[in-house]
Amino acid sequence: MERPRHQGMTKNTYMRWRLPLICLLWEVAMIILFGVFVHFGPEADAHWEEEKREMNLTSDIENDFYFRYPSFQDVHVMIFVGFGFLMTFLKRYGFGAVGFNFLLAAFGIQWALLMQGWFHSFQNGKILIGVENLINADFCVGSVCVAFGAILGKTSPVQLLIMTLFQVTLFAVNEYILLNLLHVKDAGGSMTIHTFGAYFGLTVTRFLYRPNLEQSKDKEGSVYHSDLFAMIGTLYLWMYWPSFNSAISEHGDAQHRAAINTYCSLAACVLTTMAFSSMLQKKGKLDMPILESKLHIQDTCGIHNLHGMPGLIGGIVGAITAAAATEDVYGKEGFIKAFDFTGSYKTRTPSIQGGFQAAGIVVSLLMAFAGGTLVGAILKLPIWGDPADENCFEDDIYWEVPEDEESDVYHMHNPDKAASP
Amino acid sequence: MERPRHQGMTKNTYMRWRLPLICLLWEVAMIILFGVFVHFGPEADAHWEEEKREMNLTSDIENDFYFRYPSFQDVHVMIFVGFGFLMTFLKRYGFGAVGFNFLLAAFGIQWALLMQGWFHSFQNGKILIGVENLINADFCVGSVCVAFGAILGKTSPVQLLIMTLFQVTLFAVNEYILLNLLHVKDAGGSMTIHTFGAYFGLTVTRFLYRPNLEQSKDKEGSVYHSDLFAMIGTLYLWMYWPSFNSAISEHGDAQHRAAINTYCSLAACVLTTMAFSSMLQKKGKLDMPILESKLHIQDTCGIHNLHGMPGLIGGIVGAITAAAATEDVYGKEGFIKAFDFTGSYKTRTPSIQGGFQAAGIVVSLLMAFAGGTLVGAILKLPIWGDPADENCFEDDIYWEVPEDEESDVYHMHNPDKAASP
Amino acid sequence: MERPRHQGMTKNTYMRWRLPLICLLWEVAMIILFGVFVHFGPEADAHWEEEKREMNLTSDIENDFYFRYPSFQDVHVMIFVGFGFLMTFLKRYGFGAVGFNFLLAAFGIQWALLMQGWFHSFQNGKILIGVENLINADFCVGSVCVAFGAILGKTSPVQLLIMTLFQVTLFAVNEYILLNLLHVKDAGGSMTIHTFGAYFGLTVTRFLYRPNLEQSKDKEGSVYHSDLFAMIGTLYLWMYWPSFNSAISEHGDAQHRAAINTYCSLAACVLTTMAFSSMLQKKGKLDMPILESKLHIQDTCGIHNLHGMPGLIGGIVGAITAAAATEDVYGKEGFIKAFDFTGSYKTRTPSIQGGFQAAGIVVSLLMAFAGGTLVGAILKLPIWGDPADENCFEDDIYWEVPEDEESDVYHMHNPDKAASP
Repeated sequence: MERPRHQGMTKNTYMRWRLPLICLLWEVAMIILFGVFVHFGPEADAHWEEEKREMNLTSDIENDFYFRYPSFQDVHVMIFVGFGFLMTFLKRYGFGAVGFNFLLAAFGIQWALLMQGWFHSFQNGKILIGVENLINADFCVGSVCVAFGAILGKTSPVQLLIMTLFQVTLFAVNEYILLNLLHVKDAGGSMTIHTFGAYFGLTVTRFLYRPNLEQSKDKEGSVYHSDLFAMIGTLYLWMYWPSFNSAISEHGDAQHRAAINTYCSLAACVLTTMAFSSMLQKKGKLDMPILESKLHIQDTCGIHNLHGMPGLIGGIVGAITAAAATEDVYGKEGFIKAFDFTGSYKTRTPSIQGGFQAAGIVVSLLMAFAGGTLVGAILKLPIWGDPADENCFEDDIYWEVPEDEESDVYHMHNPDKAASP
Repeated sequence: MERPRHQGMTKNTYMRWRLPLICLLWEVAMIILFGVFVHFGPEADAHWEEEKREMNLTSDIENDFYFRYPSFQDVHVMIFVGFGFLMTFLKRYGFGAVGFNFLLAAFGIQWALLMQGWFHSFQNGKILIGVENLINADFCVGSVCVAFGAILGKTSPVQLLIMTLFQVTLFAVNEYILLNLLHVKDAGGSMTIHTFGAYFGLTVTRFLYRPNLEQSKDKEGSVYHSDLFAMIGTLYLWMYWPSFNSAISEHGDAQHRAAINTYCSLAACVLTTMAFSSMLQKKGKLDMPILESKLHIQDTCGIHNLHGMPGLIGGIVGAITAAAATEDVYGKEGFIKAFDFTGSYKTRTPSIQGGFQAAGIVVSLLMAFAGGTLVGAILKLPIWGDPADENCFEDDIYWEVPEDEESDVYHMHNPDKAASP
Repeated sequence: MERPRHQGMTKNTYMRWRLPLICLLWEVAMIILFGVFVHFGPEADAHWEEEKREMNLTSDIENDFYFRYPSFQDVHVMIFVGFGFLMTFLKRYGFGAVGFNFLLAAFGIQWALLMQGWFHSFQNGKILIGVENLINADFCVGSVCVAFGAILGKTSPVQLLIMTLFQVTLFAVNEYILLNLLHVKDAGGSMTIHTFGAYFGLTVTRFLYRPNLEQSKDKEGSVYHSDLFAMIGTLYLWMYWPSFNSAISEHGDAQHRAAINTYCSLAACVLTTMAFSSMLQKKGKLDMPILESKLHIQDTCGIHNLHGMPGLIGGIVGAITAAAATEDVYGKEGFIKAFDFTGSYKTRTPSIQGGFQAAGIVVSLLMAFAGGTLVGAILKLPIWGDPADENCFEDDIYWEVPEDEESDVYHMHNPDKAASP
């Protein structure tokens, strides 16, 4: 009997039919939906030569692919290596952090391509996809990775897949309301990705509150090498952030500008963060990785500080900046372009735009709380194989873990298991 | 006496003159051959301004460099970090995995530039190289990395360099037959890289069969952190695969399309693989990294499942797709472009093309079996310093290994060594 | 009492007010200086449309961003992951290597943007920045990372920040003398980055000489996994070197050529290095990572062999090549372009250019020795919280280190600490 049974625990974390079933069913659904709906967009289609002539382009290099592909790959690394390894700091949950992040992101991007496609790239019954859609799907999944940070170590892979399905759906709806109905600018995804992702995750984790989780506190620490793995994640998120923020900016100066801005801001953040990290520690020592220092039991990665607050601040600053914008800064042409004050939005003034930006924040928060409540309630059903309190933050329950010094440490804490081979 | 001597073992793994000698001799040969044969191609040459005028290009950005360099760097990371770290899952063979992969790939790309250059970029006695040649050299070496996976832990660095010399040579010949003589399309290198590389490696490992290898079974396991290192390799191979498949596609829509296709297919694979991994484990647990779960003693990394079968399937699907292709899908212009039905191939029909594609698979398999047999026979000669059975899967034999907890574990299994300082 | 007190040590390494104070003060200074001086360059500015018309460009893709951004991101990874992880090979100094490198590089790029901006991009009282400035700032910081290698483990974070401030300043002055006054070509930064950085660092470390450092020799070794982390750093520096060397080359063929040259040279280096590594070890074994094998106590990473000598050799070869250059090789147009023999430099001959190149080496060395002496003297003041000899090469003194097997090893060597909780 390999699973330990303390204090009358009756949780069934056996995944053998549940996980494969849900994975295969959903993948079949994806393949059918892709077959029915997804087509190459004009710039990825073999008819591109005709398209190029129509758009009056002179060279293949003006294909959107060459404007965006390098940034796309950077974003891709952020989602899979950055978020995955960022969360490896827990002593015994490295496989779960990297592996579940991989699973939910890989599922999420498929569903995001469909959901975002129906809202934004739907023409004549077909979703037309190009490199920009791939970036947007990665962005959408980024918000799921943020929410994952709040419930890390306390859920089964089946629960994560269900959360992903709902969160991607709600993300696409929220994004549609903000970008298309409110005509809001959401630089760097402050509202759609960070604010929505963080408060959605926090609402879910509040629902899954475990009053007795304190017991397994000894497993929440890190070990020396797991912190270095987490540093890989941290650095990749930091280094590629300029790509994240510029990946879908307008061609030319706007993309250039977004990258420069992010580069400079991020450099400034490092010094400030180090300063506060050293100031808050009683001997002035630094903590590694710094961003994760406030490890609250029910918000595993501290996403409130990391994404929630910054996202809100970003959103509010965006609203104020919009309200205060003038043609002097942007030039007449650039001004209209920056806020897209064309067509039916021709009459919008900066101050009205500021109001709509503020409305965008409120909508994102409402969607996060309502959606998080719904999903939290669903995940609380006792059929998804979530771990018992004593097994939280432990790879052993869902992964084959090699027998080594790591598990020796484990056996010292779980002597009843050490006896079995 | 540091090397253990069990059961009358007489293997001489002393590398001090053999490895330096072969490295230096070959490097001298490379430098001479590069000096004699290699020149910059037109787009990397200082005469490019004239070239640009002749090709009727309007801007420096239309230099092939800007179409391909980002993808090249992604492929480069796949070869050196991806393949290198993928194979770090063995408990005590991390240095060998990363370090030997580095050694053979660095040698292989030089020899590949020459071999592929003579076949494909030879003009007026000179090999003209540009960024596309670098990518092709990396691809060629990729097939050696695949074969390395089958013999990982059972060969000396000298043997690996000899295998690389032969395999790169045969790869170039096979590639020439397929692409130039049979006029076959080999999307993603299904036939030239994966099928050829895998069956070449499997033939070699069958020749090097060690009936008593079971003894060292305790060294084949992984440890917790080595699995996380392997996950770095896995993720980079997965994330950058769209670059791998699109790196040398035609400019414009074709490159765009190849990247999108790969992105979507790979996402689907993750769910399917997780499903089967969970289904096959008796408690429904997942294995990390999943792709390497079937560790057969004589096919160390399980390359048959990982590259052999997928390569074959890719090749067969390619043949069927070609045979079934119609102008409706590609448009008349795109159709001719996709299969390059120009010049002497003007009269080829899709069904004839399908036949040639099938012939390409057969040729690749024959080259792999014949070449693998030749190389296996050469490597079996008792002069290359291969490890004794008890020293397989151990860094200690060819690398300076630091004394730490790792070696403590080792000493417990090798008490005769623990006594010496 | 957590800090061990041996042999009457009285060093005060308490960072709680010094580090936050210097970080915050400097960051405030940076923000003010950026506010006053820094503006977007023409290609990152919203007025780019007008600029594009003036420069007679036809498409947004001709924005410098698309020529350089992918290379920039590769360089960025080299600085933060490459240099950071390269230095993780020390047994107990992984946090310091990655974390301090992160801190000094993040501060350095801000100061470099200003210093280099005043010298090279200053117009009408404003520094105009674009992607090329970001690359140059990363390059400048690269020379600080090189110098960091010499003093790794022997300095406090405050000392590192002070060194960075001075070194970036001197780098910018030296660069201005070489590139603008002497009109020298510095391919790959041989003189400005490697020679200057290495000899600056070596002068500083000579000043900080610790005669009793031998005591802590047991901490300088590596452990199995720390070597694999170091290999990540090594590989990223190696793989992305073609981007480093081509990142700010002229558009078109020059950038293409620089990347190809570096790719081929680096591949050749691997075999040669492996050969010598194996030859120098008494049993012919290889060392990992090879480049760091000569660990001298006072030049922690052996930067003399790694950057000093290669930089000098690169500089000398550059001088000889320049002196021997002819129009045959470059073509008339390319020849003038390669050395920029225009304007007031129209009359320069190759041999005169060779002389100026040689002068560039001398100037770089003088700047390194004089600057290193100044900075070394400042850092020797007993107010910066540097570690005592017994605490060198130890994360524990400046970082929160998790309690795990790593610290168990530590406690065995420091029994007086094991008693405290």
